[in-house]
Amino acid sequence: MTLIKKPVTGMKDILPEEMKLRDYVIGIIKDTYAGFGFTSIDTPCVESLANLNSKQGGENEKLIFKVMKRGEKLNLETAKEENDLTDSGLRYDLTVPLVRYYSNHQNELPSPFKALQMGYVWRADRPQKGRYRQFMQCDIDILGEPTNLAEIELILATTTTLGRLGFKGFQIRINERRMLKAMAAYAGFTEESYDSVFITLDKMDKIGLEGVAEELLKDGFAKESIDKYLDLFKNVEGKGAIEGISFLADTLGDFLDADVKNSLQEIISSVDATKSAEFELVFDPTLVRGMSYYTGTIFEVAMPQYGGSCGGGGRYDKMVGKFTGQDTPACGFSIGFERIIMIMMDEGFKIPDEKDKVAFLIEKGIGGEQLSEIIAEAQKERANGRQVLVVRMNKNKKFQKEQLGAQGYADFKDFYKTEFKH
Amino acid sequence: MTLIKKPVTGMKDILPEEMKLRDYVIGIIKDTYAGFGFTSIDTPCVESLANLNSKQGGENEKLIFKVMKRGEKLNLETAKEENDLTDSGLRYDLTVPLVRYYSNHQNELPSPFKALQMGYVWRADRPQKGRYRQFMQCDIDILGEPTNLAEIELILATTTTLGRLGFKGFQIRINERRMLKAMAAYAGFTEESYDSVFITLDKMDKIGLEGVAEELLKDGFAKESIDKYLDLFKNVEGKGAIEGISFLADTLGDFLDADVKNSLQEIISSVDATKSAEFELVFDPTLVRGMSYYTGTIFEVAMPQYGGSCGGGGRYDKMVGKFTGQDTPACGFSIGFERIIMIMMDEGFKIPDEKDKVAFLIEKGIGGEQLSEIIAEAQKERANGRQVLVVRMNKNKKFQKEQLGAQGYADFKDFYKTEFKH
Repeated sequence: MTLIKKPVTGMKDILPEEMKLRDYVIGIIKDTYAGFGFTSIDTPCVESLANLNSKQGGENEKLIFKVMKRGEKLNLETAKEENDLTDSGLRYDLTVPLVRYYSNHQNELPSPFKALQMGYVWRADRPQKGRYRQFMQCDIDILGEPTNLAEIELILATTTTLGRLGFKGFQIRINERRMLKAMAAYAGFTEESYDSVFITLDKMDKIGLEGVAEELLKDGFAKESIDKYLDLFKNVEGKGAIEGISFLADTLGDFLDADVKNSLQEIISSVDATKSAEFELVFDPTLVRGMSYYTGTIFEVAMPQYGGSCGGGGRYDKMVGKFTGQDTPACGFSIGFERIIMIMMDEGFKIPDEKDKVAFLIEKGIGGEQLSEIIAEAQKERANGRQVLVVRMNKNKKFQKEQLGAQGYADFKDFYKTEFKH
Repeated sequence: MTLIKKPVTGMKDILPEEMKLRDYVIGIIKDTYAGFGFTSIDTPCVESLANLNSKQGGENEKLIFKVMKRGEKLNLETAKEENDLTDSGLRYDLTVPLVRYYSNHQNELPSPFKALQMGYVWRADRPQKGRYRQFMQCDIDILGEPTNLAEIELILATTTTLGRLGFKGFQIRINERRMLKAMAAYAGFTEESYDSVFITLDKMDKIGLEGVAEELLKDGFAKESIDKYLDLFKNVEGKGAIEGISFLADTLGDFLDADVKNSLQEIISSVDATKSAEFELVFDPTLVRGMSYYTGTIFEVAMPQYGGSCGGGGRYDKMVGKFTGQDTPACGFSIGFERIIMIMMDEGFKIPDEKDKVAFLIEKGIGGEQLSEIIAEAQKERANGRQVLVVRMNKNKKFQKEQLGAQGYADFKDFYKTEFKH
């Protein structure tokens, strides 16, 4: 069989330069989140298909890499459909595994439980620039905290991390599933049509108010409802976050749960008063977030200058109950790790505080005690925190040093067999 | 479909306490290896079956988790055998992916290339205590270095890491594939029988010299060869490493390549002279190492007090050539990451230098400006490097503090709605 040099379709090898940046970013993320009391966890990359296909994953459930059964369980003769051949698959997100994990270990975990999970996920998407079939996700979640303390901490932790990574001028857009629904109800849409209305609303960014109106009309909704609906958005535009929420709460009246206004305003004012990074917290009534499992607050990191969303999350108070039979408040925020890395690479981010680096070039033929002496010197430098590369000297030493220079080695020591010339 | 709380068979969830240790160990490993000039890389968890089944993986090739084809490529009707349904699988080690990676990116990588790869691998082994179907591997490899500088650096890097993790009194056992073969040739075994002889020799640890003799006899080998073979081992026993190697080189004469003696002795004396950890470097002519791809030096970390091997590696100068058509010297050392973690957990290892931790307990109902003030105080503490957990106060505050105490919070601040009592 011919060996294949390329990675499998849609997945990528990570070269040393990118990996150095990834390790650095992972370090900052872990350190910052630890400061907020999040503890790292890990779950297997392989999950039961029963869980992956539990309707929590939305469109992602169509993109599962399935793992074949093995041994006696695999019977090609009698297999009639795909599910006869497979019972597990690669996870497409970290939320379903987290909720399974929490359900499984609830009694061993503190309450509230603040989890950080970083790991690869897989989606058999059509490969395209910057989108891979294996990619890193980075989620923080708080389980067991019903109040908006969860949202405040999640937003502060995420934005503090982004700030430490050098990002500024970005936006956190915030909305509430219940606000979305109240606005639709107020306008006269029926509950069954919400999903369809929200799919159109979600395009506001791209097609604008007029475009949304057109599409809703085309979908057969009443002109009167559409007008009433879009008037709400027009009236909020230009208002500040606190003011916009108050306006909607007043207008929507009984359509809106009484605590939504206070909760949203409290999140916004608390975060605004205490944030350490330079960003804007924006109330965005058009924010939908695709996943159907959200039950309350939803939010998104927007970096328009880099073409879109770099993370998001929200409250999903009903998912744990699907595993345990008992609902548990849950709220999470996911950083778009791969996008962040791509942006930092594009911007030529320089990693601070790398080890001081020196290369020892040793002439070919050096061995025995002389070699031991050189290695001992390298070991001493390493114990002092320096990075020491010990390599054999090439014939073209000048070219070799240029190449090492490109790897960040600016300091060199040459060792010759006949004598030590430094 | 019923949701499943347990992880898939043979794989495990990692709880916060273990995860903290894993993160700590990963940090030490990355920092130590960086000091030796190793650079991190990563490869996809999914590899082409063509590569996974290339005979480089030995017995592991029987344990592959295969990934199903998708979409049009999957045709159940016409599928006759497993390979019609799958073309990729989860990697069972990091060596095959590394060699593919190197072959793919050779022109973009420095020479020699010193790679560190940490990542999960999967083997559909029979689950048993402490052995999982998904586990972390941690490999360092040097590609492009033909001299024993590679072995010396690999052994020093690995042992320095183990030393920093608190391990001492362990052994590094070292041997040479060419020494193994020369001894067998000298005793009169034919080349075709080497594999079979070595499989028996590998049991020396368990069944002793007599056991090995018996088994070889049973396998039909000549008594004369067996006696001559085992005499070699008897004569080496009790000798120091340098002396033992010299004795074998003298005895084996032309059966042994001339450079084996010098190379092995140089590795041993250089490592001994410069090692920073407390361990013993032992020449062990019975060391076989299972994988057939080894071509020269082989080594293993032995921790008899913990029941066996905690890592190993060796030189494999022929594997890159299988991908590129041109042999490249290669040598690697893999730490038994999961064993190391298990031992450290069992020994109750305490992680040094954790963040200073404080928990803020805030009475239920606190919101608005008061909440902002508390969060602002938490943010200030975090900016100073402390870990601050902000939680709602439970009715039974004493019990809550006990539980937080178990999570390492010794310092508390209580906040009440009516006034701030600290």
